[in-house]
Amino acid sequence: MSVAVKRAEKTIAVSEIFGPTIQGEGALIGKPTVFVRTGGCDYRCQRCDTLYAVLPEYKGDWKPMSATEIFAEIQRLSKQTPILVTLSGGNPAMQPLEALIDLGHEAGYTFTIETQGSIAQPWFAKLDYLTLSPKAPGMGNPWPTNWERLDRCLQYARQGEKQPAICLKIVIFDEVDYAYAKELAARYPEVPLYLQVGNHTPPHVSNTIDTAGLLERLDWLIQRVTEDRWYTVTVLPQLHVLLWGNKRGV
Amino acid sequence: MSVAVKRAEKTIAVSEIFGPTIQGEGALIGKPTVFVRTGGCDYRCQRCDTLYAVLPEYKGDWKPMSATEIFAEIQRLSKQTPILVTLSGGNPAMQPLEALIDLGHEAGYTFTIETQGSIAQPWFAKLDYLTLSPKAPGMGNPWPTNWERLDRCLQYARQGEKQPAICLKIVIFDEVDYAYAKELAARYPEVPLYLQVGNHTPPHVSNTIDTAGLLERLDWLIQRVTEDRWYTVTVLPQLHVLLWGNKRGV
Repeated sequence: MSVAVKRAEKTIAVSEIFGPTIQGEGALIGKPTVFVRTGGCDYRCQRCDTLYAVLPEYKGDWKPMSATEIFAEIQRLSKQTPILVTLSGGNPAMQPLEALIDLGHEAGYTFTIETQGSIAQPWFAKLDYLTLSPKAPGMGNPWPTNWERLDRCLQYARQGEKQPAICLKIVIFDEVDYAYAKELAARYPEVPLYLQVGNHTPPHVSNTIDTAGLLERLDWLIQRVTEDRWYTVTVLPQLHVLLWGNKRGV
Repeated sequence: MSVAVKRAEKTIAVSEIFGPTIQGEGALIGKPTVFVRTGGCDYRCQRCDTLYAVLPEYKGDWKPMSATEIFAEIQRLSKQTPILVTLSGGNPAMQPLEALIDLGHEAGYTFTIETQGSIAQPWFAKLDYLTLSPKAPGMGNPWPTNWERLDRCLQYARQGEKQPAICLKIVIFDEVDYAYAKELAARYPEVPLYLQVGNHTPPHVSNTIDTAGLLERLDWLIQRVTEDRWYTVTVLPQLHVLLWGNKRGV
């Protein structure tokens, strides 16, 4: 058995595969994409909006799949037409995703990952896009950011021939989160930074979202950055939350 | 008097200068920016959302300003900190904006223009970003697209040393507009295309917007492109409309 075949047979814990839909947030906002959400996470954020892909009690819902099986499902959903694949979680950096990226690239698909930057993988260098979203205090992650690990994510991503387009994304709930985002911007001035209004009523808190409240928070955040003359940042909502609330699979 | 000084003294018809706020649409969605809205337009779109910068009866509200005066106001609003300047209208391509771009660039400001692509200017090549938004039938523009002129806009933008990042943007109200967008994509396959949900209740129709209706139309448009396997396009709302409705100056 060749090394490539062996890699493709490594199992990946998959919470859900869905789409095509659009990416609702960040640098690729509005782009058609298929999501692969892996199961398992090294974080425990109180305001997590996908606990079903994080907590061990949902483990029974996660399906172990090979890269070949996952890519077959992506091809079925995209009707064999190359599309952007978004690797999300949980923390997708916990999974052996290199073989999936290789398989997809051969067929013209592109790949982006959304990860908190706590686990660095050499295959980050193979991605087309990399979004690192370390968690500000408002997300309620009990562990502080490990800056060395975040540095390593950037370092690994930059060590290939073809480098992914890298950005940072911070979910903002309040002034403390805002201060954290400023710290991040000072630390990585060369990396584009996206600020995102957090959903204060995630699925485990409420079935419905507070649309007016989310837009008010967005308005506040825009005023906050412009008053601060912070003109190099980008401020965005989560479009999928405005469109579909806390519904899964869109 | 030098040529540069003469150019800086040419008067520009200005409807409004406001900001900093964020760009609410297109490729630069979410980016902090100051808007310079010029007065006057060669189009008459029934669904235009800025008729006060288009119709001759508002001419009395437009202030003739020099590039130097406009840039002083941009600097005041941005508190002397370089920011992205969005040139909009009306049709800003009707105005002599080259001197303003030169002045701004010297101070570290960047420039983007939003124009329908009916008038080409050699100074397009000096811009940092160029958004061409030809009008689909649903906008109610009585004249069909002049493709030669649109070609010329692209040609002029591409003839400098530094080329602006170019994109196309189409406002979509219905299936006819969607078909127009497909035609455009086939004509310019190398230019990134943004589809935008149109505001069906612009200021001259209603004081309030129909948020639920706008989100429904966005949902429809996302389904339309994904069912069509049109994965190279980007689908976005107008954030400023969702945030601030038909309010001016934001």
